[in-house]
Amino acid sequence: MNEPILLHGGDYNPEQWLDHPEVLEQDVQLMQKAHVNSVSVGIFSWAKLEPEENVYDLDWLGEIIDRLWAHGVGVILATPSGARPNWMAQRYPEVLRVNAKRERSLFGGRENHCLTSPVYRDKVRKMDQILAKRFGKHPAVRYWHISNEFNGECHCPLCQASFRQWLQAKYGSLEALNEAWYTTFWSHTYTDWSQVESPSPLGESGLQGLLLDWRRFVSWQTIDFYRFERDAIREILPEALCTTNLMDHFDGFDHWAMAKEMDIISWDSYPEWHNPRETEEQTALRTAFVHDIYYSMKDKPFLLMESTPSNTNWQAVSRPKEPGMHMLSSLLALAEGADSVMYFQWRRSRGAMEKIHGGVVGPDCQADNRVFLETAAVGKALQDLTFIAGEKRPKQAAIILDYNNKWVLDASQGPRNCGLGYWEEMHRHYDGLRHNGYSVDFLPPKGDLSAYPLVIVPMLYLMDDATIQNLRDYVQNGGHLVVSAWSGIADEQDQLRQGDTPYGLTDLLGLRVTETVALWDGEQVSCTSCTEDLSDTEGAILCDVPALEGAETLLQYSSAFFAGTPAITKNRFGKGTAWFAATRFPAPFYKTLYQTICRDSGMAAIWQHPIPEGVLVSYRGPYVFLQNWNRTAVSLETGKGTLELHGWGTAVLEQDGAVRYVSEPFPFPLTAGKPAAEK
Amino acid sequence: MNEPILLHGGDYNPEQWLDHPEVLEQDVQLMQKAHVNSVSVGIFSWAKLEPEENVYDLDWLGEIIDRLWAHGVGVILATPSGARPNWMAQRYPEVLRVNAKRERSLFGGRENHCLTSPVYRDKVRKMDQILAKRFGKHPAVRYWHISNEFNGECHCPLCQASFRQWLQAKYGSLEALNEAWYTTFWSHTYTDWSQVESPSPLGESGLQGLLLDWRRFVSWQTIDFYRFERDAIREILPEALCTTNLMDHFDGFDHWAMAKEMDIISWDSYPEWHNPRETEEQTALRTAFVHDIYYSMKDKPFLLMESTPSNTNWQAVSRPKEPGMHMLSSLLALAEGADSVMYFQWRRSRGAMEKIHGGVVGPDCQADNRVFLETAAVGKALQDLTFIAGEKRPKQAAIILDYNNKWVLDASQGPRNCGLGYWEEMHRHYDGLRHNGYSVDFLPPKGDLSAYPLVIVPMLYLMDDATIQNLRDYVQNGGHLVVSAWSGIADEQDQLRQGDTPYGLTDLLGLRVTETVALWDGEQVSCTSCTEDLSDTEGAILCDVPALEGAETLLQYSSAFFAGTPAITKNRFGKGTAWFAATRFPAPFYKTLYQTICRDSGMAAIWQHPIPEGVLVSYRGPYVFLQNWNRTAVSLETGKGTLELHGWGTAVLEQDGAVRYVSEPFPFPLTAGKPAAEK
Amino acid sequence: MNEPILLHGGDYNPEQWLDHPEVLEQDVQLMQKAHVNSVSVGIFSWAKLEPEENVYDLDWLGEIIDRLWAHGVGVILATPSGARPNWMAQRYPEVLRVNAKRERSLFGGRENHCLTSPVYRDKVRKMDQILAKRFGKHPAVRYWHISNEFNGECHCPLCQASFRQWLQAKYGSLEALNEAWYTTFWSHTYTDWSQVESPSPLGESGLQGLLLDWRRFVSWQTIDFYRFERDAIREILPEALCTTNLMDHFDGFDHWAMAKEMDIISWDSYPEWHNPRETEEQTALRTAFVHDIYYSMKDKPFLLMESTPSNTNWQAVSRPKEPGMHMLSSLLALAEGADSVMYFQWRRSRGAMEKIHGGVVGPDCQADNRVFLETAAVGKALQDLTFIAGEKRPKQAAIILDYNNKWVLDASQGPRNCGLGYWEEMHRHYDGLRHNGYSVDFLPPKGDLSAYPLVIVPMLYLMDDATIQNLRDYVQNGGHLVVSAWSGIADEQDQLRQGDTPYGLTDLLGLRVTETVALWDGEQVSCTSCTEDLSDTEGAILCDVPALEGAETLLQYSSAFFAGTPAITKNRFGKGTAWFAATRFPAPFYKTLYQTICRDSGMAAIWQHPIPEGVLVSYRGPYVFLQNWNRTAVSLETGKGTLELHGWGTAVLEQDGAVRYVSEPFPFPLTAGKPAAEK
Repeated sequence: MNEPILLHGGDYNPEQWLDHPEVLEQDVQLMQKAHVNSVSVGIFSWAKLEPEENVYDLDWLGEIIDRLWAHGVGVILATPSGARPNWMAQRYPEVLRVNAKRERSLFGGRENHCLTSPVYRDKVRKMDQILAKRFGKHPAVRYWHISNEFNGECHCPLCQASFRQWLQAKYGSLEALNEAWYTTFWSHTYTDWSQVESPSPLGESGLQGLLLDWRRFVSWQTIDFYRFERDAIREILPEALCTTNLMDHFDGFDHWAMAKEMDIISWDSYPEWHNPRETEEQTALRTAFVHDIYYSMKDKPFLLMESTPSNTNWQAVSRPKEPGMHMLSSLLALAEGADSVMYFQWRRSRGAMEKIHGGVVGPDCQADNRVFLETAAVGKALQDLTFIAGEKRPKQAAIILDYNNKWVLDASQGPRNCGLGYWEEMHRHYDGLRHNGYSVDFLPPKGDLSAYPLVIVPMLYLMDDATIQNLRDYVQNGGHLVVSAWSGIADEQDQLRQGDTPYGLTDLLGLRVTETVALWDGEQVSCTSCTEDLSDTEGAILCDVPALEGAETLLQYSSAFFAGTPAITKNRFGKGTAWFAATRFPAPFYKTLYQTICRDSGMAAIWQHPIPEGVLVSYRGPYVFLQNWNRTAVSLETGKGTLELHGWGTAVLEQDGAVRYVSEPFPFPLTAGKPAAEK
Repeated sequence: MNEPILLHGGDYNPEQWLDHPEVLEQDVQLMQKAHVNSVSVGIFSWAKLEPEENVYDLDWLGEIIDRLWAHGVGVILATPSGARPNWMAQRYPEVLRVNAKRERSLFGGRENHCLTSPVYRDKVRKMDQILAKRFGKHPAVRYWHISNEFNGECHCPLCQASFRQWLQAKYGSLEALNEAWYTTFWSHTYTDWSQVESPSPLGESGLQGLLLDWRRFVSWQTIDFYRFERDAIREILPEALCTTNLMDHFDGFDHWAMAKEMDIISWDSYPEWHNPRETEEQTALRTAFVHDIYYSMKDKPFLLMESTPSNTNWQAVSRPKEPGMHMLSSLLALAEGADSVMYFQWRRSRGAMEKIHGGVVGPDCQADNRVFLETAAVGKALQDLTFIAGEKRPKQAAIILDYNNKWVLDASQGPRNCGLGYWEEMHRHYDGLRHNGYSVDFLPPKGDLSAYPLVIVPMLYLMDDATIQNLRDYVQNGGHLVVSAWSGIADEQDQLRQGDTPYGLTDLLGLRVTETVALWDGEQVSCTSCTEDLSDTEGAILCDVPALEGAETLLQYSSAFFAGTPAITKNRFGKGTAWFAATRFPAPFYKTLYQTICRDSGMAAIWQHPIPEGVLVSYRGPYVFLQNWNRTAVSLETGKGTLELHGWGTAVLEQDGAVRYVSEPFPFPLTAGKPAAEK
Repeated sequence: MNEPILLHGGDYNPEQWLDHPEVLEQDVQLMQKAHVNSVSVGIFSWAKLEPEENVYDLDWLGEIIDRLWAHGVGVILATPSGARPNWMAQRYPEVLRVNAKRERSLFGGRENHCLTSPVYRDKVRKMDQILAKRFGKHPAVRYWHISNEFNGECHCPLCQASFRQWLQAKYGSLEALNEAWYTTFWSHTYTDWSQVESPSPLGESGLQGLLLDWRRFVSWQTIDFYRFERDAIREILPEALCTTNLMDHFDGFDHWAMAKEMDIISWDSYPEWHNPRETEEQTALRTAFVHDIYYSMKDKPFLLMESTPSNTNWQAVSRPKEPGMHMLSSLLALAEGADSVMYFQWRRSRGAMEKIHGGVVGPDCQADNRVFLETAAVGKALQDLTFIAGEKRPKQAAIILDYNNKWVLDASQGPRNCGLGYWEEMHRHYDGLRHNGYSVDFLPPKGDLSAYPLVIVPMLYLMDDATIQNLRDYVQNGGHLVVSAWSGIADEQDQLRQGDTPYGLTDLLGLRVTETVALWDGEQVSCTSCTEDLSDTEGAILCDVPALEGAETLLQYSSAFFAGTPAITKNRFGKGTAWFAATRFPAPFYKTLYQTICRDSGMAAIWQHPIPEGVLVSYRGPYVFLQNWNRTAVSLETGKGTLELHGWGTAVLEQDGAVRYVSEPFPFPLTAGKPAAEK
């Protein structure tokens, strides 16, 4: 079941149509028209699979899977643990979550079960194993889709007890916990384990150590739940390939740790295309950034598990994709490392919360409308691009991404409670590198940096000793490192390092930070270039004020009281070089900055030709993706002549310029309501 | 007691002054000065009427009513159920509401009793009948004022049980409920009636069917409570005329259903005059819109039950009416169909929440200040205009108003969660018609349309089959229909119609909507006119993209990807004509649009003379109201010469131009503190 | 221990460093370098002082105090009642607060104990007396610091019972309470004391009398708690000098009443220096205003108990003070009446919520950084300025400040629920006086006005009879009084005065207010001057519309419907004069207005020389402080020549111009990281 193909399909909820057999029959016909080869089933089917406690009905699902497979459609089989039946919540209220105010939920929603509840775990395990036994060997089953979009936390008594056990295992003694959490502050010293409670707006919120450990515990709990389900299936099916669908910039658990338990990464991508705050290219970069995170998680291709062929239903304004954007954004996923394009959902629901969310098949049940035809065109393109399947990406630049650091910046009091922008900081470096045509991976702070010519450390406030050593070793051995402001301040328990900062890196960077000046939103500090390579610019958000201890100044502050102090520096250390970017610069400045840094790093570009404005370059194996995010055509030099690429067009080339694929524009309005989708 | 007079007066709370007999005596003297002929009493008197459980004291109220009647002042007698005594809440906590988070209220506020509580119903019934027996035959009593400004909902166990009973009666079986609410979604299937709970932020909020039925249930409950009180009185007084005071654009229950139970409609009107967001004319149109809704509810004159002679106390800024506005706005009510001008409240309270709210008599207790004198001038004008009492309005255009549709748009997820603007859509059509001098009524979706030359269907997302048939029959038989965007999408359970939309109307409109593009706030799509009658304009909020199936294009989109598709169409169907307005246009455009549509509808104007900017025309019986909402005078052609109408002035004419009444401007500053109110 | 010195130091939390003895040793060394002579200890030490119930450990604190004293550092000894140990909350949940929604807190935070709990009072009393016995006679102990930043309220059953007792004592009977609270409104009459509940979003919020008495009760409770602790200490140490640290514009209790119980006032000052909404001079005036309130509380010098040498951690943006601002703002405190400059905190915590808050010693533990050096420079300046210690301020203008009035304006419904701006109104008068070089005190409404040539009554909506008499007597006897809009409306129970307003002052002002027009934010009414002294200007927020009864018009409205009525008037009454300012003018207008009023009052300026823009003048005893809030130097005429004062510089002179002290600018960047702090 692991042949190198590109999956096309999406969430399929036939349980909503069991009383409409003609619809189920139409589904498989339309799937073939849309070149669908894979759908996800069973995600929210529990109430149908176990209508009464211990009464199971899997036959309907069996029929669905058989019919799909008979029409060449494989399945990604979900465990239904994301939502439980009403009878279960009524009989066992412990399966329902308790919020931070200690209020027990009523039945409703989804992805909201207690992560500890033994009853829930028993029910889930039993259900998963019944599914595994019945369908595990079915040839249609490609992957197991464990639960759905894990997120959130529970503060019930069972979870409090579990939290305390987790802390006992971590710290051994209350003394150690008190020290780690610095509980002498405000006399919050714990003298009995039973005093420990999760953070609450009604209680403790002032101990960053607790806030941080709570997020670590919730992360552990969530991953443990995933592992619990995976292992239940593995007991029956030792070879089962398991995944769970991750979400965008979501930080509810440590994705590096979750990824280790997953066989393949998958995620759900819902960018706000055509929003008034950014260009389509900017939206594309925000999206590529996340694709690249999830590619990096296992250093191999991932699944785009959900996307919409048109609009969502939950954004402030759920604007549909304009004609051609579905193709462009789907091929962006491919370009960044996806081996699938899948949707929520195949057919729009008739009722309830998500019925306005675009599906491949709409309430008109027709195959001749724009959404269906654009989807079918993507299906066709995926067939044409099968040669991409399984291809890996080159290693050039890497950005350190640390969930612990995100959590602690969220929990922090000061210096900017209106926002420090950890993601934004990462995005600026990422965009700068991508605008220079480089591929960007992400790494955990203690990851192996050795394969990357260039490593970026954006706003890494929290650094443990091993991370510091990892960065030092990397530069010592010839690596090129960029560190940005508000880094190296605290240790792994969010206790301030006692000594100069960035702690442990001052010799490496050739400077120490003497103070950090938080700026108001909209406030800017002028910066003047000290080299020909950089232009004058401005700093914002916060300014580290460095005192040089050996580094060279590339850019300096030229307003505010610290005018004359360095804003960007460069320092040789061991066999390598380290840069320090002391404030947040305007987004376009990072293009210039990384032009300089990449050149000084000696990092070669793979695509040697000029890249016009608005064109993004990506690499998979020997192939180069060129995507034109402008609405108008551009001329591309390819080494084998000039390629005219239409607005919102994609070309896939070999590195020598040989063209393997070029997309076609999608017509609108459709002629007589029936556009020529597959010519 | 139903002689054709115009009532003038307001809420009178003498229980606040029982220990100040001289004040009570002054009251009736001042009422005569102010030409007051009717006051509402007893609204919040329960604590005085039943100071201890089962101990009643009605004598003080008897004295008040006698004294009023002796001075020529009738009463609207209220049941005191809007607020209950402290002792009752203490002894029977079930009378207090429980909110959606399942928190029981403490005692406080008003209009906040449990709508189910048997104890409360018993107490209310007993009280109402005691009042009816004591005062029902008193010659002063004109109407019964049931409770006060019904609103809100209760989630207590008694109401949950009542909700389940209501659902059982509606659906018969859980299977039917599951199907109607589409509970297969997220495995939310109910397997026992006891699992059904009202919507809650702690529980279910994803089933639109539940959300919609909950609002229907609350509507039923509220109306049932009104009916329960009305019937308690009717048992004693079969001829009693009952009303309850409604509120502005309030949508907490289905007013069409409530209206059926009421003998006369009354409402409380508190426009924000002189606010910085709109001109006084715009405020007037917002207010006239609501007057017209309440006139339409029973197709007959209504009571303006509350208004303020100066300022409120509860708006963000409670700006007082400027000199002359009280006359102008009071006569607006008359022009639109009111047979009264009444106030909250006669005399300002000394203490508590509403003491800053303007009353006719202020804390200076004088009759020589601006508020008193303007009120007296209105009282005099009402006497002069007695000939208006009981006159009905002509039937020209009608707008379909559906509370179910409002509820479901509120509950919707997508396409614009930041607001679809159902009221705003209605207002634009209304204003366009009024700016052309037409009278506008409102009708429920299954109402009798036959009397109206023109019917507007603004954003009627939810349409049941009977509504569709009603609209089809209307046009088939020669009616003129305007349908606007996002109509005909869902059925009465908010399930998407499977087929082309506007469902059931595609042949009538000569088009089908191929997709709907939600726009961001501030985003606009250009539109180009295809006829001489319309000018180029812009669309906003959302754009239906139609494919023509026979209709004629009057205006087309000229930007965005759907440029070239129709934005306004016209189609002949049966003996009638149907227009489709596919997006939301700027407010002024609707004046032009309805100039065209009304002309094509052959709908004759009643007032044939030019209407200057800022002048509103209204009709009652043979009379025409001309109100000048400009601060400066205008010249009006009347057919019998030219009438110079002062700024903020009102003229009442016969249709041939004969002048029956012209208001006088109110002087300011008052000369020596004593303006000449009644010359 | 009361020698006339200026204290320098701050909060010292050695309990956080007991396992780092070398740090404790370094502390006293660094304190000497920073010229620290006093620190506050024990504020949050309870968990260390009583690690288990009834097990006390005071030895560590004894060692700290001994070591401090041995190095010349005195202590302000705190009672630890601001935060309690975890074990206590676990064993006695009654010590934890209940919020207005009746939710009991979990353990966490600080300044959040039940103010009634007998258990807590017992524990606190025992702890305080143990501290008093052990350390009361220690020569190091200067003051007792009772608890910390008292604030907030508790709605638990114990507090409800206490509230009812307090009301019974105040009113004697339920009848009197019902009358005072005007409970006939909405039938809220109480028929049993047990029905009385504190205000709640779930219950009563419509009775302003209740809202007001609840705030009075909480004020009484808070002060009672302070008194309870003070008396516990006094039992052991009859001579103990007690204080508690107050906060900025905080209005949680009546500070006039609290001040009577305190031996010396102290407060914590955290202005947002360098914020984008105002100039540094404006921030300085906001700060001086509060300094002056706290000076006025006991008409004698106070302690600046907390401030930051750099940045906070809790503001939206915790921007550090720029070089020189620490000196300037510290000397501002001195100029306004402080006898100390103290900080939170001496050494930054390693962990928990406040670790980013600037401390004198930072995580680099060095004495050569900017913060330490600026602090040391302030320490040195305080030594040089010891002659200021104990000096009092002159009496010129006084502003009436009434917490009851603040509470009732907060609780009010109308005329502007988006804000009346009581503090803002006071600030405008204050700034106008300060810009003319006058010293401004604050007085309670029934305070002794006789020493002041000029008294301002800003927006005193609530006036009891004694206040009215106090103001009348003052003017009668020759005083000069300024009253502003929305004054004299209600009595002490927030019941509207029945009669003309400002009630009891119409003859004194020579006018009555006929109406009050609330304006929208941004709305302005033009005003035209009727004298040469004033310029044309605008009114905003709300406009009283007066009818003259003898007063002279200085400025009149020239737009809106009340154009031509007076906006500023002047009236002779008895031997004095009264002005009325009927609306809120732009801030700069008050400078001109008070130029006129002060001249007409015959109030002589102390500093007779021209005051350049941006320079503030303050007086202590025979000394004049001149502070230059401009970033550039100014030339000052002193009577003994011209003094060039650097940007952000402070000069202290004698009244004849003799220079006693001039600050020096602080260099930046520090040369080689080591600025010359003490030359």
